[in-house]
Parts: sequence; structure tokens; C-alpha cells
Amino acid sequence: MKNILIIGAGKSSSSLIKYLLEKSDEENLKIIIADISIENALELIDNHKNASAIIFDVFNENQRKQEIEKSDIVISMLPARFHIEVAKDCLLFNKHMVTASYISKEMKALDSEAKQKGLIFMNEIGLDPGLDHMSAMQVIDRIRDNNAKILLFESFCGGLVAPESDNNLWNYKFTWNPRNVVLAGQGGAAMFIQEGTYKYIPYHKLFRRTEFLNINNQKFEAYANRDSLKYRSVYGLDNIPTMYRGTIRKVGFSRAWNIFVQLGMTDDSYIIEDSENMSYRDFVNLFLAYSPSDSVELKLRSYLKIDQDDVMWEKLVELDLFNPDKKIGLQNATPAQMLQKILQDSWTLQKHDKDMIVMQHLFGYEIDGEKRQIESSLIVEGENQTYTAMAKTVGLPVAIATLKILKGEIKTPGVQLPISKEVYIPILKELELHGIKFTERKVKYLGYNPNHVMG
Amino acid sequence: MKNILIIGAGKSSSSLIKYLLEKSDEENLKIIIADISIENALELIDNHKNASAIIFDVFNENQRKQEIEKSDIVISMLPARFHIEVAKDCLLFNKHMVTASYISKEMKALDSEAKQKGLIFMNEIGLDPGLDHMSAMQVIDRIRDNNAKILLFESFCGGLVAPESDNNLWNYKFTWNPRNVVLAGQGGAAMFIQEGTYKYIPYHKLFRRTEFLNINNQKFEAYANRDSLKYRSVYGLDNIPTMYRGTIRKVGFSRAWNIFVQLGMTDDSYIIEDSENMSYRDFVNLFLAYSPSDSVELKLRSYLKIDQDDVMWEKLVELDLFNPDKKIGLQNATPAQMLQKILQDSWTLQKHDKDMIVMQHLFGYEIDGEKRQIESSLIVEGENQTYTAMAKTVGLPVAIATLKILKGEIKTPGVQLPISKEVYIPILKELELHGIKFTERKVKYLGYNPNHVMG
Repeated sequence: MKNILIIGAGKSSSSLIKYLLEKSDEENLKIIIADISIENALELIDNHKNASAIIFDVFNENQRKQEIEKSDIVISMLPARFHIEVAKDCLLFNKHMVTASYISKEMKALDSEAKQKGLIFMNEIGLDPGLDHMSAMQVIDRIRDNNAKILLFESFCGGLVAPESDNNLWNYKFTWNPRNVVLAGQGGAAMFIQEGTYKYIPYHKLFRRTEFLNINNQKFEAYANRDSLKYRSVYGLDNIPTMYRGTIRKVGFSRAWNIFVQLGMTDDSYIIEDSENMSYRDFVNLFLAYSPSDSVELKLRSYLKIDQDDVMWEKLVELDLFNPDKKIGLQNATPAQMLQKILQDSWTLQKHDKDMIVMQHLFGYEIDGEKRQIESSLIVEGENQTYTAMAKTVGLPVAIATLKILKGEIKTPGVQLPISKEVYIPILKELELHGIKFTERKVKYLGYNPNHVMG
Repeated sequence: MKNILIIGAGKSSSSLIKYLLEKSDEENLKIIIADISIENALELIDNHKNASAIIFDVFNENQRKQEIEKSDIVISMLPARFHIEVAKDCLLFNKHMVTASYISKEMKALDSEAKQKGLIFMNEIGLDPGLDHMSAMQVIDRIRDNNAKILLFESFCGGLVAPESDNNLWNYKFTWNPRNVVLAGQGGAAMFIQEGTYKYIPYHKLFRRTEFLNINNQKFEAYANRDSLKYRSVYGLDNIPTMYRGTIRKVGFSRAWNIFVQLGMTDDSYIIEDSENMSYRDFVNLFLAYSPSDSVELKLRSYLKIDQDDVMWEKLVELDLFNPDKKIGLQNATPAQMLQKILQDSWTLQKHDKDMIVMQHLFGYEIDGEKRQIESSLIVEGENQTYTAMAKTVGLPVAIATLKILKGEIKTPGVQLPISKEVYIPILKELELHGIKFTERKVKYLGYNPNHVMG
């Protein structure tokens, strides 16, 4: 009997728990789900004999140590900043650990001790980061194994609403943490390299510098992620001329989102006076010039040069942004919190809505003097509001990795991310059984040259 | 004999030192100028018998304590972050202190101890902060003493080039720390209140939301300072409907400066790879889309929608921004540092150039049911590159305050700023003898209503 302790049973844990429960008889697993609130966990377990839920506070040191000591492997699905306490106890009691979060400095610092004790601390093994690493490295390693030289790597990922539930003008709903969507792109310029030229985009221009993508004959757009440059060393592509990572949206989203950025509504750094009593219309007016006579609508259109028949305008109206009677009702709120509140009115998934994950990688390379390009794409749709595409693509890689570590099929100790063949080959293979399968095609090599211009 | 210790003898100390030397016989003063480098000090002293210069390191605790102990009052003209060590020693040895910097939290914390010991720590007594406080409070107190209700306070200040030296398309040269000019407006949204309505401007829109001013029949523009709201409590105007502070530029500066902001060139938060070997043209291209064929010029014009015959374009060309041969030559530089380097080529004051300080306050109030408005304006031109308008308007208030504290004419102890009658009345009076005199006129009351619309 092997004990798996899962700490944190939020939205992204459903497919993870389902997978492990389905394997629990065959693999002789006992699954303990630990969370500060166990309602969601009890529903997911549904009285399964191999599982139990416990009320758990990660800051209760005694309880944390006790539960970790009893387990064989620990999965932390908590917000990233809480992993480190769990990781230290895993070192103390010689337990493996799995997370879907970026490796923090604190986590990285445990590498040598983990190696010494033969422990695997596998991180960045959800969707993004996770599935992106594995699916990219599989193609990169194959190209390199053929002695080809890699010239271009572009990688895009987005969480969207599925086509059958796509019924608003923005072609967008919140399928993940709304706060992260509102703050996306903040905290520094986006940086990447194209054909050997460094490029930097400030936040306030990010949503006007999108790239177009074609995935399964559908057109999408993407805006640049913050730091694409650091992935050169992660993927061993230090001298690559083109490296770009971006976030996928339906075409037209970014141009409209840019209105919020331009107005200053996504700012999370200061508190608006009297936010609680403001109407949606008052909120908009905070960011427009004072006038004793002009309307909020006209001031906004004039300020941002929006034509009255532009669909961007309809998008704003759809959000009920100019309503003088609807109150924000949040005390001491930042602009970003107030905007999130307004968007949640319109962009919350309804009971029968489904989500969708879209990912695409482009690989350019040169072999025997010839330049070639591979396009690798993935679309996953959610089943329902529990087993969403997001929960599947985050949870299944975590679950599969956990079991393979437990069974000794993944062996290399230390603080890891899934970029080695030992890890990504078996996991990607098993993900295909769950409908998570990339489609590859060979395309004409263009380099980074979106307008197909010959220079 | 009274000993005045001046720590820091940079550009802003010339008029300060001159004033004190001129008074030194009559007032029996001995002036000690302490700086890490004393060349500038020796030149300013010019062998005056009542002055001496010493090489001084503010982090040398023994020396610092020794010199402060010997003095009767200490003026710190160091950058603001260095005042606190000096202030603590002033407490230790029971010395008064004067600075032209904003009161920091650390400085504020010394208030009760200073009061207890009867020491005056006078801060914010330069130009801005300083002269702005004093000239504003003089009118505010007068209006309040007449039992009128203050409805509007707007205050503007700018350091510019004097008309006879104003010979570039930007109508601007660096008359103060260039770094502060490049970074101006960053660090959070600008916030103010107009006719009871809170207004917030994000940095990337700051230079497109200017106000026009008329000062001595010249038109100027102003962009909003960061936090105007906090001045409500400083000036005792907590419920005032309109409170706005701004920075003055010649008309057209902000619209062109906005190009740098939009491109991301004023960002000081990250380092550009290979900054040292980049040309001015390469620097511009960092912020534009990659293209194998399009020129930097066309990409920029298209991106920011600049017509080829727009004077903004001429302003960029004047800075030699598209030169492929001129190298930046700065290692590990931020965009802001690189931009500063380029601007200093064009905007450094030449030998015979003179600077100019411009300030204007607007006061709206209601008395006996009637609304009235007062406009108070100041223009000061520099004499030469040593006795600049900036040095005069910063240094003279510091010098006058110092002498008045020493002579017991300013008495109230504690960590102060110059907003009480005891301080501003005698200082403003003496400043008039030095040509620093505000012109007041009564104008029609408009409230905040720049387009003169009736609502």
C-alpha cells in the first residue's frame, strides 16, 4: 500500500484525483486529500474506498509534519508560495514531491540535498508550465538527435472557452483564476529575440503587438509572455536566433483589452478612494478627464479614438460598463479588483459551459543545408465544469508523474522540471490515452517573418 | 561666532553659499563646506576668510560626529536618503538642521525627540518642495483669515531653459538632474481631485493629459504630479473639491516625450542585453517589431501613427535618434539610462545658456456668496551657469531659513516644513530682495473648467 498525500483540492485537482482513484486498486494506492476546506474534496472522492479527505492547514506545523511523514509521496497543489514549507518537510522525512508550479529560488536551493537523499522534487509539470516543456522538448530533442541546428522556437498557450459555449463579443470567459487574467503581462517589459534581434515591449503596448496563429484552420492571436529569453537556457538553445512565447486569445480580444490597459483599469498598485460606493460608470469616469458637461461615453471615445460603430465599443457596452446604477461594492479596492468584479458579471462560466486549452509550438531548423519547420498543435476541450480542459491538462501530467515516481520509473533525483526523455516520453505517451495528443505537420520554413516578405 | 556646517556642495549650493558668505561678517558666521570632493566648494568660496572646505565622507562616523559637534547648525544638501544619519547626530549633539528634501518616514520619526530638545529640523525648504509651500500657504492663510472657503488649489512648477537660450525644437534642456527628468511620472498613477471627482492617470497616458497655463502672457503646459491628494492634509484643505499639482513644460514637449514613453524607452527596471555596442538606431529598433525589410523610421511612424510632416518627427531627428554609427557605449544599461545618454548629447546646457524657473498657483474661493479666483505667478531666470535660477530658488530659502533659525527668529521646534506664518512670512519677504517675487492677479472664477463650458 502506497500513500499519496495531495495538499490542496481546488478546481485543478479534479482530474488528478480521478486518475489516481482509477489506478488505486491496480496500483494499491491510498489517497489522502488535505485542504483547509474539504467540501470539494469529498465531492471528488464520492466515497471511494481508497481515498479520504482531511481538514488541513499547511501552517499547522505539527499536522503538516505528521501527514507528510505518513505518506510515500506528496503532491502540493497549493499556490506556489506555500510549497516551500512542504518541500522542507519532504526532505526531513525523505519523501518525493510533485508540484505544477515554477521552481522558486527557495525550491532550487534544496536541489543538492534532494539529490543526496535520492529524492525527486518534480515541478512545472502541469499545463503551462508542464505540458509545454514536455511537448517542446520531445521535438527539440528529436531535431537535435538528427544533428540539425535549431533556428526558431515559438510557443503559445491559452485557456479559452470552448466553441459551443463561446457566446459573448469578447470570445472569452474566465476558465482560470480571474485575477491572473486581469494582471496578465504586468511586472516588466516583455522580452524575446527574433532573427537575432532583441525585442522589448512595455506593458502598455503588449496588447497591440499581437501575432496571428493558425491552429486547426482557426485563426487565433497571441500576446508576448514576459520573459522568453530565459527559456533559451532552460531548453539548451542558448544561441537560437528566434525565441518567443505567447498567450493565445481569440482574434480581437487583445485590441479590446487594450482599452482597459490604456485607461489604467488593470493597475493593482493603489487603492481607489470610496471604491465601495462607486457605480460601474463612476469607475470608468475615474480615468477620464473632468468635464461639467461631456458624457462618460463621449469622453472615452474621444480619448481612445474609438469609432461609435467599432465592435470594441459594443464589447464595452456588453460588459454594462456605463451603468450608473450598478455598484462595485468592494471596499478599499484597487482598479484591477474593481475591473475583475465587473468582468466576472459577464465572463463567469455558466453551468453548461465548457472550456478549451489551445497550444502550439513552431520549430525552425536547418539540416543538410535545408531549412525546415514543424508545427505542433494541441486542442483539448473540457467535459463539464468539473473535468475541465484546464483541470485535465494541469492534473493529468501531475498524476502520471506521481505514479511513475512512486513506481520507480522516473528515477533521477533532485529539484527537476520535465525536460528529460526519462520524464516526458512516458508521460506524453500516457496523456495520449486521455485525449491529450499533439498534431504535427511540416510547414514551409519562413523564420520569423510573419508578413512573408523577402528582406 | 556661529558655525554653519554645509554638507554637500553640488550645483544647488552656489547661491546658498554666496548668501551666507555675504552675511558672514555682519552676522559673525563661519561656514564649513563638507563634501567628498571639494573642488566645487573651493571655487564657490574663492578664498573668503569666513569659509573653509573640508573633504568629508558622510559614512565616516567619526568625522561626521566630530564636524556636527563643532557646528551650531547643519545644512544637508546631500541626496535625501543620506539625511537621516546626519539628523541622528544632530539630535545627539543638540544641533538644528535644514534640508531641501521631502520629509522621509525616518525623519518624521525624530519629531518628538527634536521637539523635546527644542531643536528645529526644517525640511522641504528649497524650490519644490519649499517655495511652493510658502507661496501657497501665504495666500491660503490670507483667504482663510478672511473667513472665505477655499474651493480650488492648483499648483505648477517647472525648471526650463531661459528664452534667450531656448534654441532646440523641444524648447527644453536639462537644468537639473537628467535622470529625474527621464524617470518623471513613474512609480504609480497620478492622482488628484477636480470638482469633487477623483481622477487617476496611468503613467503611459500622463503626457497626453496635459493642462494649459498662461503665465505672463506665455502659454505653457503641465502634466500631473504623482500624488496631489496628499497635499490636502498638508495644507489643511481636506474637503477641497479641486486639488491638482503639475510640472510645467513648454507647449509641445509632452506630446513628443510621450513617444519615448510609448516605446518603453523610459523604463529603468531591466537591463538591455549588449547595450554597450548598440547604436542609437539599434536602440530605437529594440522597441519596434522585427522586419527583414522595413526601415526603423517607417516602423516607428506606423506604430505610433506619426505623420512625416509632424513636428514631433523633426524633434526625433534633431536628437539624431536614427544614427546607425553613434554608439550608446554604456554597459548593462537600462532603457532609461540609454535614453538619458542620447538626450544629454542634445539637451546639456552650453556655457552661456541660462535656465528659468516658472511657478504658478491658482486659488479659487467663495466669500460672502461670491466666487473668486487668484492667480499667483513667478518667473526667475538664472544669471549664468553657476548662479542658476534653480540654485537661487533652492539655495536662498535654505540659506535664509538657516540664518533665521540661528538668530532665533524661527523658533518652533520639531521636524518641520515651511507652512507656518512664523517661517514663510519673513523668508518670502527677504526672497523678494533677491528678485524672487510672486505676481498676483484676480481672475474670473471658473472652478476646474478648462474649456469654459457651462455644465
